[in-house]
Amino acid sequence: MLKPLGDRIVIEQIEQEEKTKSGIVLPDSAQEKPQEGKVVAVGNGRAADNGERIAPEVSEGNMVIFSKFAGTEVTYEGNDYLILRESDVLAVIG
Amino acid sequence: MLKPLGDRIVIEQIEQEEKTKSGIVLPDSAQEKPQEGKVVAVGNGRAADNGERIAPEVSEGNMVIFSKFAGTEVTYEGNDYLILRESDVLAVIG
Amino acid sequence: MLKPLGDRIVIEQIEQEEKTKSGIVLPDSAQEKPQEGKVVAVGNGRAADNGERIAPEVSEGNMVIFSKFAGTEVTYEGNDYLILRESDVLAVIG
Amino acid sequence: MLKPLGDRIVIEQIEQEEKTKSGIVLPDSAQEKPQEGKVVAVGNGRAADNGERIAPEVSEGNMVIFSKFAGTEVTYEGNDYLILRESDVLAVIG
Amino acid sequence: MLKPLGDRIVIEQIEQEEKTKSGIVLPDSAQEKPQEGKVVAVGNGRAADNGERIAPEVSEGNMVIFSKFAGTEVTYEGNDYLILRESDVLAVIG
Amino acid sequence: MLKPLGDRIVIEQIEQEEKTKSGIVLPDSAQEKPQEGKVVAVGNGRAADNGERIAPEVSEGNMVIFSKFAGTEVTYEGNDYLILRESDVLAVIG
Amino acid sequence: MLKPLGDRIVIEQIEQEEKTKSGIVLPDSAQEKPQEGKVVAVGNGRAADNGERIAPEVSEGNMVIFSKFAGTEVTYEGNDYLILRESDVLAVIG
Repeated sequence: MLKPLGDRIVIEQIEQEEKTKSGIVLPDSAQEKPQEGKVVAVGNGRAADNGERIAPEVSEGNMVIFSKFAGTEVTYEGNDYLILRESDVLAVIG
Repeated sequence: MLKPLGDRIVIEQIEQEEKTKSGIVLPDSAQEKPQEGKVVAVGNGRAADNGERIAPEVSEGNMVIFSKFAGTEVTYEGNDYLILRESDVLAVIG
Repeated sequence: MLKPLGDRIVIEQIEQEEKTKSGIVLPDSAQEKPQEGKVVAVGNGRAADNGERIAPEVSEGNMVIFSKFAGTEVTYEGNDYLILRESDVLAVIG
Repeated sequence: MLKPLGDRIVIEQIEQEEKTKSGIVLPDSAQEKPQEGKVVAVGNGRAADNGERIAPEVSEGNMVIFSKFAGTEVTYEGNDYLILRESDVLAVIG
Repeated sequence: MLKPLGDRIVIEQIEQEEKTKSGIVLPDSAQEKPQEGKVVAVGNGRAADNGERIAPEVSEGNMVIFSKFAGTEVTYEGNDYLILRESDVLAVIG
Repeated sequence: MLKPLGDRIVIEQIEQEEKTKSGIVLPDSAQEKPQEGKVVAVGNGRAADNGERIAPEVSEGNMVIFSKFAGTEVTYEGNDYLILRESDVLAVIG
Repeated sequence: MLKPLGDRIVIEQIEQEEKTKSGIVLPDSAQEKPQEGKVVAVGNGRAADNGERIAPEVSEGNMVIFSKFAGTEVTYEGNDYLILRESDVLAVIG
């Protein structure tokens, strides 16, 4: 298991089959990175200036939209994840 | 539904038919992006340094003027929205 | 009505007929932008770090001097306004 | 009257006749701007993070030394003033 | 013993034999630096604005993933360590 | 008298006759600026975020070492002084 | 005696005879600056935002590892010291 620190969260990216309008499936390098994912782990939150943790707004299982290119990709037990800060999450879907 | 995080809000942009003085309708790429929109979702507010959330000043349904080029465009269920920070909103109209 | 957010205020700019020493009226593009205006709307103030709003020092109707080029010009119901932050106001005249 | 905002103060600059060692009076453009002035108006002070105003250290009538090139020159009722932040004042003379 | 200060921690890097897909072991200079390590010492935590220390989230013995190129390499009693800030740790593994 | 503001202090620089190893006295322009001086006036201290003044650590009469090139040189009643921030003082001697 | 201010400390650098693998002693200019030293004086600590001093973590006599190139070299009574901020100290040895 990956337990993110502070205001970080672990995202499982949702891969979508991408087609151009003419129906041709684009190879990976020609696609934009996905902006949508599922939260699989949440940190304890950022430490406020008084030392207390600010409770995160997202929860495990949430589907989220996040800034393109945000975060760091990691591979853990053969799966790819994205670790990013909650502040890079724009909105929860649902 | 899109639920924005922190001090973010979701805006539905108001498209206006743009004409030049001679009456020619300009194609999209020649227009400036709109600066006016309707708030369709509001986050919980920014976490202050003591950990409490600062209540947003805008509410769902407000018509607002916001900084050009602010925020991130997202497409959700076929509709286009703009997710921006409340601090990019200049004023509420009404 | 325009209701500015946070520490923003709405200014109605005072246009002055500008003459050079020889008495020639300069066309707009050769003039400096005005630095003087009338406050027509005031926001709730900036949120301090403890979450409370800091009361603005200017009031509606104040004549103010403000930094050149500060703020954003908006047109509302056919009138031109300038939305700027209270910190761009140098002094109240009166 | 000019009432400066926040931690700003209004300074009346002390012009001094400048001579080179050979006794030639320099025209304005060849002189350095004065660094000395008289405080003619003082703002309410900067708002601290808890929202309270920090009392200014200078008072009306103080003679002060301030950083060259600091502040903004304004003309009011035919007189020239300099509006600057109290933090640009180095020391009070007297 | 190395006792890190503030929000710093000491990491023992986990070296892994790196092979390309064809099975060739790469010499050091062609590999990326490891991103995984074991925490061997933890500081007292960052001093919050009220002067109290914020308790670190990692503990001695934790396996962690950290940002590439973060921190400073030191050699102590013949062993190589990495001293980095807890904020450079992305997640604890386990 | 010069009364510095906030966390500023007034320093009287200690000029030292500088000789090269061969005993030649260097003219001013070839010397480094002095780093040592005597404190002749101390401000009320920096205003903390809660609005209170932080008591300065140096006192009038202290001999101090300060960062080269820090501060602003002023001439007052024919004497040269340096006004700098207490944070530019590295250490008190004695 | 040198009494450092705020969060500064005075370090006596530990010079080590440096040899290349072939046994040649390198002249000073070809060596890296030492990263290890002994704490000989400690300031009162940084003033927190509430005005109180944050107690330093290092004590006189501590052997420390610090960032290369950090701090300012001073000569006092014929000895060379390094004055640096406690935040430039990576770890205490021992």
